[in-house]
Amino acid sequence: MNRPSRFSAAFVAFAILTMAPSSYAADEDLAPIKAEVAKRHDEAVKRLQDWIKQVSIAAEDRGFPEGAEFMAQLAKDAGFQQATVVNTSGKPGVFATLDAGTAKTVGLYFMYDVKQFDPAEWKTAPPLDAAIIDKAGLGKVMVGRGAVNQKGPQSALLAALHAIKGAGKKMPVNLVLVAEGEEEIGSPNIAQLVLKPEVKAALEKCMGVFMPSTMQGPDGVVTINLGSKGVVELELVSSGDKWGRGPAKTVHSSLKAMIDSPSWHLIKALDTLVSADGNNIAIENYPKPRPLSADEKEMIAKVAKVRDEAKMKEQLSTKQWIDNLPMQQAMERLQSQPTVNIEGLVAGHTGPGGMTILPHRAAAKLDLRLVPDMKKEDAVAALKAHLAKRGFGDIEVNVTGGYDPTATSKDAPLIQAQVAVLKRAGIDPLFWPRNAGSYPGYIFTGEPLKLAAGHFGLGHGSGAHAPDEYYLIESTNPKIQGYDGAVMSFVEYLYELGK
Amino acid sequence: MNRPSRFSAAFVAFAILTMAPSSYAADEDLAPIKAEVAKRHDEAVKRLQDWIKQVSIAAEDRGFPEGAEFMAQLAKDAGFQQATVVNTSGKPGVFATLDAGTAKTVGLYFMYDVKQFDPAEWKTAPPLDAAIIDKAGLGKVMVGRGAVNQKGPQSALLAALHAIKGAGKKMPVNLVLVAEGEEEIGSPNIAQLVLKPEVKAALEKCMGVFMPSTMQGPDGVVTINLGSKGVVELELVSSGDKWGRGPAKTVHSSLKAMIDSPSWHLIKALDTLVSADGNNIAIENYPKPRPLSADEKEMIAKVAKVRDEAKMKEQLSTKQWIDNLPMQQAMERLQSQPTVNIEGLVAGHTGPGGMTILPHRAAAKLDLRLVPDMKKEDAVAALKAHLAKRGFGDIEVNVTGGYDPTATSKDAPLIQAQVAVLKRAGIDPLFWPRNAGSYPGYIFTGEPLKLAAGHFGLGHGSGAHAPDEYYLIESTNPKIQGYDGAVMSFVEYLYELGK
Repeated sequence: MNRPSRFSAAFVAFAILTMAPSSYAADEDLAPIKAEVAKRHDEAVKRLQDWIKQVSIAAEDRGFPEGAEFMAQLAKDAGFQQATVVNTSGKPGVFATLDAGTAKTVGLYFMYDVKQFDPAEWKTAPPLDAAIIDKAGLGKVMVGRGAVNQKGPQSALLAALHAIKGAGKKMPVNLVLVAEGEEEIGSPNIAQLVLKPEVKAALEKCMGVFMPSTMQGPDGVVTINLGSKGVVELELVSSGDKWGRGPAKTVHSSLKAMIDSPSWHLIKALDTLVSADGNNIAIENYPKPRPLSADEKEMIAKVAKVRDEAKMKEQLSTKQWIDNLPMQQAMERLQSQPTVNIEGLVAGHTGPGGMTILPHRAAAKLDLRLVPDMKKEDAVAALKAHLAKRGFGDIEVNVTGGYDPTATSKDAPLIQAQVAVLKRAGIDPLFWPRNAGSYPGYIFTGEPLKLAAGHFGLGHGSGAHAPDEYYLIESTNPKIQGYDGAVMSFVEYLYELGK
Repeated sequence: MNRPSRFSAAFVAFAILTMAPSSYAADEDLAPIKAEVAKRHDEAVKRLQDWIKQVSIAAEDRGFPEGAEFMAQLAKDAGFQQATVVNTSGKPGVFATLDAGTAKTVGLYFMYDVKQFDPAEWKTAPPLDAAIIDKAGLGKVMVGRGAVNQKGPQSALLAALHAIKGAGKKMPVNLVLVAEGEEEIGSPNIAQLVLKPEVKAALEKCMGVFMPSTMQGPDGVVTINLGSKGVVELELVSSGDKWGRGPAKTVHSSLKAMIDSPSWHLIKALDTLVSADGNNIAIENYPKPRPLSADEKEMIAKVAKVRDEAKMKEQLSTKQWIDNLPMQQAMERLQSQPTVNIEGLVAGHTGPGGMTILPHRAAAKLDLRLVPDMKKEDAVAALKAHLAKRGFGDIEVNVTGGYDPTATSKDAPLIQAQVAVLKRAGIDPLFWPRNAGSYPGYIFTGEPLKLAAGHFGLGHGSGAHAPDEYYLIESTNPKIQGYDGAVMSFVEYLYELGK
């Protein structure tokens, strides 16, 4: 089963990369740093391997607080003068600062947790060995859980700091790092980390916050996302216990003739949430999306023009978009529409064959994607009121995580610095109004911080949330950067931000 | 989780047992046999233990053809002159005959397979040790998968044959045994066994067919069932592949904004199958139930009068019957109404927490209970046509097992012999029109054989399909028989049938 990343690059737009990998460092002043990056390659790769072996998975309560302590040490080793583990009511976060005595301060958002995995599903290498193997068409990749999501690119950013320091150069910006351990469960406690007084005070000095990422698809394409949809992850649970009808424990299926079924109760409730085709939200008083602006429509049109629709459909194993829409309209729908999606259904017997039971409990796992200016709390409140009004008030709405959508202006210096770095490297990036996936950028872009936020980083990886996740270490593909190229992209970006 | 037996005794009516266990063998001629039963107790218990250790589970393709060979040997050891393994397109059956040179011939229906189990869920003893332990209020019980469903009572029937032979007595009836290895998956190939020419020819000579069973609840109550509902077990599967919409492989949930969802497609299809309360079948042209006869209503009224409704609701962890019906009407509904029940729902992420995916496949496991004179094939055909007409023709209807309902007249000699034996033992049994569960009696009662069919056997056990299944070996409860009492009930029944 393919489990793509919450912040998947699978469906973003792109531009043609024209440079060769060796031509990246255009600025001559950075040549000594580039030499240092090469010199420290093995050390940096080893650091990433050690990090992958230190597993933290919030859903399994695995690797805490060790993951946070490891993260704090990584920051100190990279030159942060202070790095503190910050307790929350969930898993701890890390707050670190690097004061370079410069005018500009930049925020970094890291996650040190990774998605759950089943070692049995990994075919190319075990998930925790961080083995380096050959991958056709790419070169040498490191295979491991967290390799691309998000330890690989984050380690490359840290390697950039090591290299700048190692080359005897002055750090071009001050840095404020917040790292959380609950990204993969929907960042339920990120506010306790980011809005803690001393953290908030440090972030208020920042020109913006970015998360190290991989912007290059296997064909070297580069896109700048200007935000992300919000998300609510929740379970709807129908049970005999809460309903007061149907069995409180699973009973024999023959009893259906005289006992109500919590499973049918759930089906009837679910049916009311969306239109007959399953595609439009029918929840009463649900918050409405802001229509796409002319500027956003133009961005989408540009992307649609260069996108290979047939290839995209093949990658997504899909014959038709919703309503048989043409490409551009499908993309507009992707960008503009909120969704109510079924992630999972669970009731009774889920194994092979049948089991003649009347289950006492049925659950639907939903994710609701939100677009500007919808609010998570409004969506949840509307859902609850909708269910209650229709006789489904007993069905539990268990919200497990999520957050509001996030948006940053194309004109923000944080974004324009990305454009400058990419253009110097011969890349003319396209823009994408927002990633249809989600990340908790709202905590930076929303009240009270109202900062610019984004992702940046050359390099490539794939398989986030899936088996055989990898991050490219040594590229044999002239269109995409390997590890050292990714590290240099961060060096360039930091210098650009410092200008 | 409680997984009651397909032929559960959990919800049948009862009568008061007045005799003491030791007073059972009323017929003096049977005294030497009774002595032989006692003498051979340890041997018979050991035989049952060996049988439990020989596991056959069709759903797991486990224990074949060994289970059939073991069954054939058990029959031979008990005096059947021939016992043959009969291959089918599924798991093999066994056909055996015992010619006693008597006028009357009786059929026996056995199952040698057992339900799946998870050893981790067994708390009192491991499922395959067949350990004998003390159970409060009952005495010594044998714990093991198949202990009550159905190896325990079947072994007691075999022990009756050993005892009759051992006592030097003439067998009172000829016997024809059919044993199948697929009862727990819905007997998909039972016709290939039962209607095989030589088997059919042997069965045509029978006055009826019975399955050894346990008729005594923990309070010693005894009920005679006059049939069983039919059942269809099936999976409804919605997939992007078959639909031609939605993904053929699971993709990231953010894509819901432009890609259709097979899970919502399934929900919309399921919604059309039943009324808003989930209790009445809304499938177009679905076969209709035969109304209850006055005689059947009277049987139900008698049962309702003596049944403890509060205790029954407690046992079934249910506060209200469907439509808040009073007891008697709820029982009439149980007896007269077909059901469309959800056994299980499976889509996408079924483990703890969330997983931001748009699953390519969603399945509902259903069981449809049928009452006279509904036919399995008519029910399946109506379901398929109903779905196709509403735009759900792509949803697979995968029938995994099932059969028509079965009914036998109260006046059949097979049943009247039960009444005679029970009355002699001081038990005035009540009748129950049909078990709301199912067993493949239709193969005997339907065309072409049209035989009487039923269940018989004193003794007690519970936990069919559940962990800690047991069969009572030594009773400390004066209301219910232990192993030897069960064996003697079969001796008495065979002699009564031979009259």
